[in-house]
Amino acid sequence: MASGKPITNQETRCTVAQPLSPDLLDKMHRYWQATNYLSVGQIYLLNNPLLKEPLKREHIKPRLLGHWGTTPGLNFIYVHANRLINDRDINAIYITGPGHGGPGFVANTWVEGSYEEFFPNIDRTEAGMQRLFKQFSFPRGIPSHVAPETPGSMHEGGELGYSVSHAYGAALDNPDQVVFAVVGDGEAETGPLAASWHSTKYIHPINDGFVLPILHLNGYKIANPTLMARMNKDELTALFVGYGYEPIFVELKQETFNDKVETFNDIHQDMAAAMDLCMDKFAAIREAAKAELAAGKMITRPKWPMIIMRTPKGWTGPKEIKGKKVEDYWRSHQVPFSDIDGENVQNLENWLKSYQIETLFNADGTVKEELVAIAPKGQKRIGSNPVVHGQVSKDLKMPDFRNYEVKFDKPGTVNAEMTRVMGNFLADVMRENEAEKNFRIFGPDETASNRWNATIEYSGKNWLANHFEVDGINNNDNLKQDGRVMEILSEHTCQGWLEAYNLTGRHGFFSCYEAFIHVIDSMFNQHAKWLKTTRHINWRKPIPSLNYLLTSHVWRQDHNGFSHQDPGFIDHVVNKKAEVIRVYLPADANTLLSVTDHVLRSRHYVNVVVAGKQPALQYLTMDQAIKHATKGLGIWDWASNDQGGEPDVVMACAGEIPTMEALAATDILRQHFPDLKIRFVNVCDLMTLQPKEEHPHGLSDREFDAIFTADKPVMFAFHGYPWLIHRLTYRRNGHSNIHARGYIEEGSTSTPFDMVVVNQLDRFNLVIDVIDRVPQLQKTGAYVRQKMVDKLVEHAEYIAEVGDDMPEVKNWKWPY
Amino acid sequence: MASGKPITNQETRCTVAQPLSPDLLDKMHRYWQATNYLSVGQIYLLNNPLLKEPLKREHIKPRLLGHWGTTPGLNFIYVHANRLINDRDINAIYITGPGHGGPGFVANTWVEGSYEEFFPNIDRTEAGMQRLFKQFSFPRGIPSHVAPETPGSMHEGGELGYSVSHAYGAALDNPDQVVFAVVGDGEAETGPLAASWHSTKYIHPINDGFVLPILHLNGYKIANPTLMARMNKDELTALFVGYGYEPIFVELKQETFNDKVETFNDIHQDMAAAMDLCMDKFAAIREAAKAELAAGKMITRPKWPMIIMRTPKGWTGPKEIKGKKVEDYWRSHQVPFSDIDGENVQNLENWLKSYQIETLFNADGTVKEELVAIAPKGQKRIGSNPVVHGQVSKDLKMPDFRNYEVKFDKPGTVNAEMTRVMGNFLADVMRENEAEKNFRIFGPDETASNRWNATIEYSGKNWLANHFEVDGINNNDNLKQDGRVMEILSEHTCQGWLEAYNLTGRHGFFSCYEAFIHVIDSMFNQHAKWLKTTRHINWRKPIPSLNYLLTSHVWRQDHNGFSHQDPGFIDHVVNKKAEVIRVYLPADANTLLSVTDHVLRSRHYVNVVVAGKQPALQYLTMDQAIKHATKGLGIWDWASNDQGGEPDVVMACAGEIPTMEALAATDILRQHFPDLKIRFVNVCDLMTLQPKEEHPHGLSDREFDAIFTADKPVMFAFHGYPWLIHRLTYRRNGHSNIHARGYIEEGSTSTPFDMVVVNQLDRFNLVIDVIDRVPQLQKTGAYVRQKMVDKLVEHAEYIAEVGDDMPEVKNWKWPY
Repeated sequence: MASGKPITNQETRCTVAQPLSPDLLDKMHRYWQATNYLSVGQIYLLNNPLLKEPLKREHIKPRLLGHWGTTPGLNFIYVHANRLINDRDINAIYITGPGHGGPGFVANTWVEGSYEEFFPNIDRTEAGMQRLFKQFSFPRGIPSHVAPETPGSMHEGGELGYSVSHAYGAALDNPDQVVFAVVGDGEAETGPLAASWHSTKYIHPINDGFVLPILHLNGYKIANPTLMARMNKDELTALFVGYGYEPIFVELKQETFNDKVETFNDIHQDMAAAMDLCMDKFAAIREAAKAELAAGKMITRPKWPMIIMRTPKGWTGPKEIKGKKVEDYWRSHQVPFSDIDGENVQNLENWLKSYQIETLFNADGTVKEELVAIAPKGQKRIGSNPVVHGQVSKDLKMPDFRNYEVKFDKPGTVNAEMTRVMGNFLADVMRENEAEKNFRIFGPDETASNRWNATIEYSGKNWLANHFEVDGINNNDNLKQDGRVMEILSEHTCQGWLEAYNLTGRHGFFSCYEAFIHVIDSMFNQHAKWLKTTRHINWRKPIPSLNYLLTSHVWRQDHNGFSHQDPGFIDHVVNKKAEVIRVYLPADANTLLSVTDHVLRSRHYVNVVVAGKQPALQYLTMDQAIKHATKGLGIWDWASNDQGGEPDVVMACAGEIPTMEALAATDILRQHFPDLKIRFVNVCDLMTLQPKEEHPHGLSDREFDAIFTADKPVMFAFHGYPWLIHRLTYRRNGHSNIHARGYIEEGSTSTPFDMVVVNQLDRFNLVIDVIDRVPQLQKTGAYVRQKMVDKLVEHAEYIAEVGDDMPEVKNWKWPY
Repeated sequence: MASGKPITNQETRCTVAQPLSPDLLDKMHRYWQATNYLSVGQIYLLNNPLLKEPLKREHIKPRLLGHWGTTPGLNFIYVHANRLINDRDINAIYITGPGHGGPGFVANTWVEGSYEEFFPNIDRTEAGMQRLFKQFSFPRGIPSHVAPETPGSMHEGGELGYSVSHAYGAALDNPDQVVFAVVGDGEAETGPLAASWHSTKYIHPINDGFVLPILHLNGYKIANPTLMARMNKDELTALFVGYGYEPIFVELKQETFNDKVETFNDIHQDMAAAMDLCMDKFAAIREAAKAELAAGKMITRPKWPMIIMRTPKGWTGPKEIKGKKVEDYWRSHQVPFSDIDGENVQNLENWLKSYQIETLFNADGTVKEELVAIAPKGQKRIGSNPVVHGQVSKDLKMPDFRNYEVKFDKPGTVNAEMTRVMGNFLADVMRENEAEKNFRIFGPDETASNRWNATIEYSGKNWLANHFEVDGINNNDNLKQDGRVMEILSEHTCQGWLEAYNLTGRHGFFSCYEAFIHVIDSMFNQHAKWLKTTRHINWRKPIPSLNYLLTSHVWRQDHNGFSHQDPGFIDHVVNKKAEVIRVYLPADANTLLSVTDHVLRSRHYVNVVVAGKQPALQYLTMDQAIKHATKGLGIWDWASNDQGGEPDVVMACAGEIPTMEALAATDILRQHFPDLKIRFVNVCDLMTLQPKEEHPHGLSDREFDAIFTADKPVMFAFHGYPWLIHRLTYRRNGHSNIHARGYIEEGSTSTPFDMVVVNQLDRFNLVIDVIDRVPQLQKTGAYVRQKMVDKLVEHAEYIAEVGDDMPEVKNWKWPY
């Protein structure tokens, strides 16, 4: 069909046979009504679940919580998804964008029998139904969202915007998976969601699964109409055609909206026909792609089908309460009425009875057999899909990271690009796992900039948008229709894809400019919360860790300037539960390799790895690096001269640039004060600094004191904001002696060394700091101190004149 | 014209007279080439700015930085914007989405003469040109972006995604302003940008200015093609029709791309015709809207014109360098070639000379008179628009906040909804400033939920999407075409609008659910950086503060659950420069009123105000509240029993829920230990806790000790993550005695009191904490301690049974 022209339900009903037999239609409708009844019950009822006695105030919950508005629509889609699962024998995931529709998802998994398998106490009996109702939004019961506690869920939707990127992430490399992605028209206004529709240019018709987005226009948010429900239909159609879809409308129009059986029958038939049409289109798309490949051609990017479903908010709920419009209006968004006086007790009873309870459940609370019969069975049930419970997940086959060692004769004398070395390793991780297809990398147009070139050369960048001849002429663009490197200039979309790839058991790495990872701060929050909660749910298995490489970091954003300088993601991350958070700042390539190996083998963490991409000095042999990374921090004997005894000062550091500056400062101090005993400490695993009561990686106080001393001055050169060091160590014995330097929001377009100077993290300032803090130097150090001040002036003059850093700084190497 | 059908340049050239005379066309082309020349000069040249001698290595900068790729396109648009400014006598703002095109914006403001007015040393002479070239991306010179240092800028673009929301924010209530918003096809992939196109539904054709988005398809990002450049044209057209635009294409197609004069002439004519067409359409839209209003009708939302301009990346640059394609390719993204060997010195000289320098500049470096002559004059110059320099900004007229006082007889006995009281005040701020039209409020569908109903009732919610009859029937939806309450379910768009509204001198307030403000963490970062930098630029005036109300906060998200619980935005904010950051946690409505008045009068800060919307106890009379808010923190004598003497324990708190729990704990302690001397301290201005060397609001150590003591136990009940208290106070004398409680990532769907219990911030746990820390209670307190443990058990049992909090907790009031 011509692009730009919508398929309406009228058309589908003309051109496609009505797919539901009268019998099936009746059962599906009752199944839907059963889940609607159970949803209302969860929101309102404490007792009397089958209304065997007349409803009274004491049967109703004292605090009424939950979201009714979106729920009946979600239930409607669920029952139609079930029909499709049965008819076509598909495996389906159901992503609930409007996460507030929790009671509906729970109700569906209860009816189909998934729920009682995970929660035997909530069985399909009258007593189980009562407990099902009571627990919902009850203190310490179950959440109101499609939460981790909900069988079949992999997307909470509490924070809106990620349903579509999650759906596509789940479908990648899962060719036999169908993903129903219900998008609320509220969520559709968010930025992350608006960008993620372009996932159409990244999904492979053969290698990946089928994503069926269902945009649910129910018209209202909390208190406002939604934009998409108030656009003209031709605009709405154009928008999704523009995104790469062929939208198919299923609409219960305002003017025809009523409670007649025929109306319900029509919309059921329309929905079934639309879903069939989508599945047929999917199948045709895959066949066409196979034919193109067989003919040696590239795959033509298809127009992907999607459904735009327009049904009333709070559908099947009360039309009006006390003269105020409720159904098809924003008043049904949450609990449609909360003032439980006599009139509203009656309103609630009428509403519940309108579902004709006796046609849905038996007297003992069990679901009518003929309704249970139309639910999918076993793992075909959406609530029992093992993929979303982390139950289908293989560990990565790992090449030996020791093979990528950077070799050198003396520490601090050879340069390497840390992340390029890491990229070589990651490319071989891809290679080793080629057959399993369970490893991808993600990034916003920065994979090459971040030096993971080897992964691109090995696998290519995923690109199903148009290819031009020039891509081939240059022959080094590596745009491939089946590339495993996912690049879109949307950190949100990268993050959403990767989260879902993890949540469905697969592995990945996200590389990002350090400053701009804040774009996904809130997404990280939600994922960390999901990990924290699921850690304590035994039928969910640990999923692969969410791994970040933060590079192009603050200290080498001298060229891009102030807007590109922000090391604060670590601060954000460490607010989340210690049991799921890990932060690494490897100082060289070999340590980074060891850390990379570790995080790729780990499960159920968020691992944040900060490392530079520019040539930087290398310090540890592979053996040393493994020991260092394993311990998390340590004294570097080769840089210390305290000979295992008591030092006069501890020079500590974390991050490759602070490490270099701390070493250079140590060099200056040793030249000028040969008797000064310096202990050099490097921290790779930042969480070792916290008390062990606070974080599983934290050192005991005894261990901490053995490294940092309890009473000597500690200069701490830190990659990030310096106060983070204090926040992590404030309970340590020697805390009042720790003096931290780091990024203090200074710097613009400048040179690399000037960046550390203006933030007072440079070698000269560090020497001054030591002189000012070590008692024995306060008298004897005045001459050297002045010399450092002179050096800072010399530096400022040099860069102003030449435009580059002084050779003695640029070319400095560890001399001992 | 029919929606869905693009206007192409062919059509515009057929239907519109070619608008540029041969003479003007020649001058505009040379003007453009002059700015291109100056852009290349800035990236490459240290000396020899006019190439009077043959180019040598030493004329070239040692470090080559900058972004060429986007620059010629930006320059092209700028010269065409100038033509429009002259022809139509308009005031124009130029938003540069691709902020990396800094050299182009700087070049244009130099040629037009704005630059030398702000930087007299960089005058339009040969010496000035040399300094212009040298300073660019030079250490401590000027940034590579369209940065705060760039005259005429109000949008840096370092972090991508906000050009369109900034453009619309600047246009609101500025009916005589034209905003050219250039959007790069890289930026167009981001989420925030994708959502912000829907601003078409919020811009008023009469009251607001004209935004002309120009989507610049140059085809490539850092290392990849862009999605929008690789969509089919019908899809691209459909996408923007869907967003509410009428896209007009100006295209230099790949197949016709060459350096012939005719080609340049054609694209100049096409661009001029397209821009004329857009301005004509704008004028027609406004006229039509006026006619509709005059006829008593609502305004029909227009199809807004926009331009999609397809020109090559690195246009007019070298076609190839050493056999590798550069122009029209990603290789021209940054510096097209950096290895300055002999061959490339020649390549650079050829490139520079291709602009025919002698037709652009006189021998003394001044710009050819006939080129200067076609630039706009005075404040009509884009680089001299006073609006973007904060020079056009009036203070708000403020009603007396004392009039909104919540009155009561005794502290801690009367409930009020703090934010509702605040909303009443804000509605009157709107009213007082109705004539000036310089105050709006912003929020993602939460204004009513957050209890600012009075603002909605006064002004209405801005809504230019379709209105339905039902909006009127219920007659309380307050959707208005000229409403001053801006609601879209996109925190990004709200933030972008408000930032630009502030940047152009107007005032606002953004209310947001506390947890989801993290969505705009990165946008806050960029705005805070802008404020920090512009604070030190004397020709930029202080702009109105960016004001946040964070409500629906962690402690009252018991009903929405874990995903809605995150108080960490404060932690994020305090990492930014102290001189621009303020954080307030007023504990009651009167204090909130005083804080609100203060922040609305302030300039050039980010003010974060955290306050609840649920009924909560009130403590301070208006007089007390003013004193308390002014001082920032203080001892509440009425809640203390240390009679001005030395206390046994300090009970400190910040935030309304912790304040209530701390008071309730104090009540229990006073009942059981009447001899215990308790000092009750409440903190409203969080930054008072920091040392005064760190923050301008910080107390001196002497002041701090006078309140918190240097050696007594301090229990600190805090609204946010407890470690933030330690991060702020770790240098204080009594720090080791401070024990902070706050949110520790516990809680799910529960009751309000259970939220504080599971995070150990409740009254019972606070009493236990005091008993454990006050020496005199460690022996005598065992009985009471056990009683508190019993209370916690009783609570847990009660909520599990009843589903609500115990009456003694719910109904607690301050008894003294």
